[in-house]
Amino acid sequence: MFSKILIANRGEIAVRIIRACKEMGIATVAVFSEADRDALHVSLADESVCIGPARVQDSYLNMPAILSAAVKSGAQAIHPGYGLLSENARFAHLCEECHIHFIGPDAQLISKLGDKDEAKRTMRAAGVPVVPGSDLALDEAAALTAAKEIGFPLLVKARAGGGGRGIRLVQNEDELLPAFQASSQEAASAFGDGACYLEKYLDPVKHIEMQILCDNYDHVICLGERECSVQRKHQKLLEESPAVCVTPELRAEMVEAARRAAQAVHYRSLGTIEFLVDTDLHFYFMEMNTRLQVEHPVTEMVTGLDLVKWQIRAAAGTALPFQQEDIQLSGHAIECRINAEDPENGFTPSCGKISLLHIPGGPWVRFDTALYQEYSVPPFYDSLLGKLIVYAPTRGEAIRKMQAALAELVIEGVNHTAELQMDILSDPSFLDGSYHTDFMEKRGSPC
Amino acid sequence: MFSKILIANRGEIAVRIIRACKEMGIATVAVFSEADRDALHVSLADESVCIGPARVQDSYLNMPAILSAAVKSGAQAIHPGYGLLSENARFAHLCEECHIHFIGPDAQLISKLGDKDEAKRTMRAAGVPVVPGSDLALDEAAALTAAKEIGFPLLVKARAGGGGRGIRLVQNEDELLPAFQASSQEAASAFGDGACYLEKYLDPVKHIEMQILCDNYDHVICLGERECSVQRKHQKLLEESPAVCVTPELRAEMVEAARRAAQAVHYRSLGTIEFLVDTDLHFYFMEMNTRLQVEHPVTEMVTGLDLVKWQIRAAAGTALPFQQEDIQLSGHAIECRINAEDPENGFTPSCGKISLLHIPGGPWVRFDTALYQEYSVPPFYDSLLGKLIVYAPTRGEAIRKMQAALAELVIEGVNHTAELQMDILSDPSFLDGSYHTDFMEKRGSPC
Repeated sequence: MFSKILIANRGEIAVRIIRACKEMGIATVAVFSEADRDALHVSLADESVCIGPARVQDSYLNMPAILSAAVKSGAQAIHPGYGLLSENARFAHLCEECHIHFIGPDAQLISKLGDKDEAKRTMRAAGVPVVPGSDLALDEAAALTAAKEIGFPLLVKARAGGGGRGIRLVQNEDELLPAFQASSQEAASAFGDGACYLEKYLDPVKHIEMQILCDNYDHVICLGERECSVQRKHQKLLEESPAVCVTPELRAEMVEAARRAAQAVHYRSLGTIEFLVDTDLHFYFMEMNTRLQVEHPVTEMVTGLDLVKWQIRAAAGTALPFQQEDIQLSGHAIECRINAEDPENGFTPSCGKISLLHIPGGPWVRFDTALYQEYSVPPFYDSLLGKLIVYAPTRGEAIRKMQAALAELVIEGVNHTAELQMDILSDPSFLDGSYHTDFMEKRGSPC
Repeated sequence: MFSKILIANRGEIAVRIIRACKEMGIATVAVFSEADRDALHVSLADESVCIGPARVQDSYLNMPAILSAAVKSGAQAIHPGYGLLSENARFAHLCEECHIHFIGPDAQLISKLGDKDEAKRTMRAAGVPVVPGSDLALDEAAALTAAKEIGFPLLVKARAGGGGRGIRLVQNEDELLPAFQASSQEAASAFGDGACYLEKYLDPVKHIEMQILCDNYDHVICLGERECSVQRKHQKLLEESPAVCVTPELRAEMVEAARRAAQAVHYRSLGTIEFLVDTDLHFYFMEMNTRLQVEHPVTEMVTGLDLVKWQIRAAAGTALPFQQEDIQLSGHAIECRINAEDPENGFTPSCGKISLLHIPGGPWVRFDTALYQEYSVPPFYDSLLGKLIVYAPTRGEAIRKMQAALAELVIEGVNHTAELQMDILSDPSFLDGSYHTDFMEKRGSPC
């Protein structure tokens, strides 16, 4: 096992990882920007190193500074958390070159799975259902033939597209060719590559992801699903496990598909396989995330497994001591993200000093945060203030527990999303579990 | 189900009960003394009523004031928590007279089980093992005969004794008659009743208690054991579940004995049956507590059941929907009591303003408390500041989690026992589970 780990992250996830390390008897090195001198992760770690100015480009994305801190402090491994450098193949590669373990899959796997096209081809070849679509670089005639096969509505997507550019929604045959031309031209001028393809448009759809845990010896364990359809601008707001729509039969199929996906690439470490699930309960591979997810706690609550500890153990070469049959999901967990944003005002980010903080408690209530009273939330980083997580025997009880916990939570000094979460919890389509990814849009939030 | 409950208690347990009520959709009425105006339980409850001056006799033991608050606020039930009025048969009786549900067994049961002599006779008759001893009011000749049957060492105990008076430890036959005379005379002059009896002296011994949950329909469920041998002056400091010394066979026997004990008195509500366990793993009934215990959270963690909610449901007439076979204990839980006492200075109580508070968090870490930053701990009440509870798959992991959580806990402004708990956790006899009730004495603490 590692004796010292550097945590290349900040905020609640750095605190989460430091706690896991302490329980495992592993010394911790925090890194921090000049704006984070008073951050909780810095005071909780055994050592800390300033890695640059406030801007993430200068600090938390500053690979030479982070690698130098790791080498100087004698850390044997780096935990990247989520976001920042966690899916950066180049950083993983540099770690390898410095003989430091990157806690995650190797650079090649990150790269392979980070390329969405390649990932989809790999998964399709492995027999994992992927959103139906055509091959690349079709001419207009071929597009028409493919479109009839796929059926309408569909999406025209540019291979080089991104940020919403090069995408067109097509409702019927008449709209196809104009859309194809527009997408191709837009992508050609924006990205220098006009190649397009077609994809079935799923609407309404659920975002349901499967948690995977793998060791270095091809053991692939799937830890069930998370329902993450409550999103705003593709940012998840609330997650739960299990998902209401997932029957035992569907779960068995999705678990098998997720394991097949991981096996196909000889995956190592923790990972998440994101699926879209349509109203007929057909599921389609979307992408694979090669890191710890923000919403990992809901899976921890229903499986009883500490995912961060297992991720660290797997990285250190421990063989997983359990089999797929040993994994039992029990009870129901919900996570509400509390963001420093003003939902009444277009979700503008908020920062400032926390003048009053009261964290709810009691059995099966958990608040993963780096906040403390008098802490100043800096304006430079993402808006997550904390994750309120509850666990109860049934979904109904979990919802009531979350409502009580949200009502008890006090964070004064910044605007935040606790009241919005309370509204979400009482929405009829949330209550009956029928919600889809358009949930927030339907409620009138800009998406 | 009740629509409104008055909580006749303060501190962490009042907060614990209020949270359970909120999750159940039950309105709450807090009561508070003049010294507790700024207490957390007051701000968390839906309503609050001042019931008198700081002294407990004038407030939290002030039955007319509490009953009047219940009647005026329209509360249908009173939860007494632990301590204070929780085992007061007269209070339970007055509740009945006011047509208010007392959340606990009825007055007659409290009375019957509160009389330790009667309780032991009842249990012996029900076939529950009781510490071997003689009948009351023996003459010296009969004492000698009984002593030879019981064996040495033994205790001479006065029926009317209490607070350590009227008790003598007897190592051999020669010491018996002088001790018998001394105990009898002491008790006669102190209590006006010189009647004595003999009891086998168990040393070393473990204090292991069984949690019982019963409904109003003679369903008796036993929720396993708690090991409570880390004590100072009969005050528990640390509790864990399961107990290291309890084998599956012993557990099955103790569960059956505990269920027999509860069935013998047609017990209702939550209760705890305290046993002494000797080095040969024989167990003996000591007493039954007819209330929620301070240490209930360790049982919650290993059973997954919210004991406060089930206690309330049972009081409201809900039939328990599970059977003994449904109860599965899994993992290991430990609770450390953090008291406002100075272990370096004879455990003198400490009070004052909490100038800095940092509560540890993360998965399966729970701190049941009524503290907040800037709260002033008043000098009038018991010294419990909070209960740090952890849960992990194994005892070893639970110990390491507790060590990490204790190291993270910051309570500045009062002296407390967190460091003492850290020392306890690293004691070899704690680590191997071999500790007995003399644990603290052996470590050199006054007992």
